[in-house]
Amino acid sequence: MFVVIFRAKIRTADSEYAEVAARMRELALGQFGCFDFKSVTEGRDEIALSYWPDEESIRAWKSHADHVLAQQLGRERWYESYIVQVARITREYRYASDLA
Amino acid sequence: MFVVIFRAKIRTADSEYAEVAARMRELALGQFGCFDFKSVTEGRDEIALSYWPDEESIRAWKSHADHVLAQQLGRERWYESYIVQVARITREYRYASDLA
Repeated sequence: MFVVIFRAKIRTADSEYAEVAARMRELALGQFGCFDFKSVTEGRDEIALSYWPDEESIRAWKSHADHVLAQQLGRERWYESYIVQVARITREYRYASDLA
Repeated sequence: MFVVIFRAKIRTADSEYAEVAARMRELALGQFGCFDFKSVTEGRDEIALSYWPDEESIRAWKSHADHVLAQQLGRERWYESYIVQVARITREYRYASDLA
């Protein structure tokens, strides 16, 4: 299992930003084999995690035309800077209280 | 390079929570070889990323007495649920605008 870590410093989050982000999330989950997607934003800091079965799925997702356009808009308008890290998950622990 | 992904659903973040979180961050960075630490919280969702040179450092950090106590407090008081994922980073891309 692979994870793509997206760490960004937001410059301007206009109305199109949320719309494109939601569409990209749906595309990844619906058509590229992504099976979990979690994004958290605090002030100008964003971390988004997406989970994938293999690196081929990530490459296909990265080069899809709509996603390439979204990446370009991201650099031109929405992000001051970002880091993308691809990583292979080697182990995992989970905890859930009785309340969860 | 390894990353530890901590994804949590917060139950209650009392005053001790921020204090212990800051102490754990300092301990990881100062004594266990962690070289980057980034945490983002939105509502009850928290993602914390920490970066390590190898799995031995992560294991030593995981079993340090102060950290074990913090983990216990986390389960008893602060977190409704969490997932910890250890992953090896295979590639990385960076972007920074002229403004960054």
